[in-house]
Amino acid sequence: MPIAAVAAPSIGLAPYLAAVDELFARELASTLPHVQHLIGHVNRFRGKMLRPTLVLLCGMAVASREVESNATTSMKLGHEHVVLATVVEMVHVATLVHDDVLDGAEIRRRGATINHLRGNEAAVLLGDLLISHAFHLCSSLNSQTASRLIGHTTNIVCEGELTQNFYRRNWKLDEATYFDIIYRKTASLIETSCRLGALARGASAQLVEALALYGKHLGMAFQIVDDVLDIVGQQKTVGKSLGTDVDKGKLTLPMIHFLNHAALEHRELLVSLLESAQADRAEHVRQLLIPSPSIAYARQQAQSLVDQAIAAIQVLPAGEIRNILTAMARYTTNRDQ
Amino acid sequence: MPIAAVAAPSIGLAPYLAAVDELFARELASTLPHVQHLIGHVNRFRGKMLRPTLVLLCGMAVASREVESNATTSMKLGHEHVVLATVVEMVHVATLVHDDVLDGAEIRRRGATINHLRGNEAAVLLGDLLISHAFHLCSSLNSQTASRLIGHTTNIVCEGELTQNFYRRNWKLDEATYFDIIYRKTASLIETSCRLGALARGASAQLVEALALYGKHLGMAFQIVDDVLDIVGQQKTVGKSLGTDVDKGKLTLPMIHFLNHAALEHRELLVSLLESAQADRAEHVRQLLIPSPSIAYARQQAQSLVDQAIAAIQVLPAGEIRNILTAMARYTTNRDQ
Repeated sequence: MPIAAVAAPSIGLAPYLAAVDELFARELASTLPHVQHLIGHVNRFRGKMLRPTLVLLCGMAVASREVESNATTSMKLGHEHVVLATVVEMVHVATLVHDDVLDGAEIRRRGATINHLRGNEAAVLLGDLLISHAFHLCSSLNSQTASRLIGHTTNIVCEGELTQNFYRRNWKLDEATYFDIIYRKTASLIETSCRLGALARGASAQLVEALALYGKHLGMAFQIVDDVLDIVGQQKTVGKSLGTDVDKGKLTLPMIHFLNHAALEHRELLVSLLESAQADRAEHVRQLLIPSPSIAYARQQAQSLVDQAIAAIQVLPAGEIRNILTAMARYTTNRDQ
Repeated sequence: MPIAAVAAPSIGLAPYLAAVDELFARELASTLPHVQHLIGHVNRFRGKMLRPTLVLLCGMAVASREVESNATTSMKLGHEHVVLATVVEMVHVATLVHDDVLDGAEIRRRGATINHLRGNEAAVLLGDLLISHAFHLCSSLNSQTASRLIGHTTNIVCEGELTQNFYRRNWKLDEATYFDIIYRKTASLIETSCRLGALARGASAQLVEALALYGKHLGMAFQIVDDVLDIVGQQKTVGKSLGTDVDKGKLTLPMIHFLNHAALEHRELLVSLLESAQADRAEHVRQLLIPSPSIAYARQQAQSLVDQAIAAIQVLPAGEIRNILTAMARYTTNRDQ
């Protein structure tokens, strides 16, 4: 379900999202049948379209502020927004494909992952193809601004993933490093999506920064909730492999909190579960953490970030766009998938 | 050994190659110590610098034609050539890092591969970081021309790698498909290196195409020789894991020729070796192919491509640059590493 459906459909996002879908397919289209076949799998993985929706909404937010009215006719966006929205979605899907290789995940969006279906080799190369096409598409724009921002952001995303990988099975990982990792690997691209959407509509520096800040906080909250769901969620509801953080030795906020605040014997039990080779250790971690205050703590942190995201967009005029951005931020912490 | 050392050092390439090294390190530099440590491994893998050398030489070739003289003072290049040369080297190193993951290779340029040293996860992410920085660096140029060409080329490279992966363990692979694969995965980036070097020095369309054709033919010859060395080379001399094509079920030109021309019993023996799980099957393939005409056939194909590369640059005035480009093309087929 596109995340825009959370909010009112009246804003007229649907045709832009359809144009993103169309451009996504057109940019990736290959004359080689086996490549085209592989690309066909990618479309099944497309999900909430959070990032392209934010590019579009932030463009509209700038427009709505200009006219200080809700007249949707004044919020028309051009081809540049469709290109930028497609680029950020392509970068995001590329990271999903490589993430699934790194995690050895078998399920994503209720379907088998590329690595599970077609092997790690094809999945590594498909991720490479997606990132290549993202930059290629971005270079079709008239200015280098977006290419520079996207390149800067993917540098940060890769550093985040490398940091996460570096700290695997390190039970001393602290909150500050965790927050740095999730900023880099998740929030930076969401922040950039908002920034690009605003910049491309000629927003003032102040408005660009406000919307970027909204995206950054929303992105951090989004990742914390993802990490909570990896522990407490139901695979049937969430639609992807769960317990992968435990299986891959990646500490997340609830676990970090637990290792710092739970009774000593409980901390030792968590470490021994994380270090064990038992197939059902993720289930044991779940049973250990659910009754603890650590899940609630992580959810509160996410809620506080959502509140900061909403505070950042108070520079926008009251109206439909601000309402939608607010609803999207709230949905981040309320979702169960 | 930089490939430029094959030719006369008098042309003044060394300071530009040193600037490429410096920019390569500066672009990748990270404030995160564990990322910086990983990047340290990359420098050990830098090799012949074929692609940056071609960017620089093609820029100089345009200059040499303008002045129709060999005065090196007239062949000065600007920062743009250093940036372009660094970008193509970064793209190339990224493909090496991911190739080694796909091949499960343990040795590259006489050192352990990143995947062998630091695991597949770190190697996938390091490859991603390199490609991201390549595009980021490219976006620092004033125009989008290079970003577009590089993006277009990396699309082709990825499609080539995907095609190679698709045909693994397919013993019916034909020559035409093999040539298409090596054009995409290897020659396209070498062709683009020449094209970029010429374009950035304001070459005429005719000269750009002549130098691009030189790069394309040289690149095809280079890959054929690489594939021959994977069968007949000595790991000690070549400095990287050999026999990986056999181990990964990748047919190359000598094997394709053998499967089409050898006596039936020898063809069947090759297929059974390729399908076997014996640890020393690559050695058996080597012993089967070396006395056959198939190795010589592949070398002749490479030689013919080198001749075509040299023919393409006859549009250049006689002189040092043309001599160096000719010597580099000849070296491609004569090398044993």
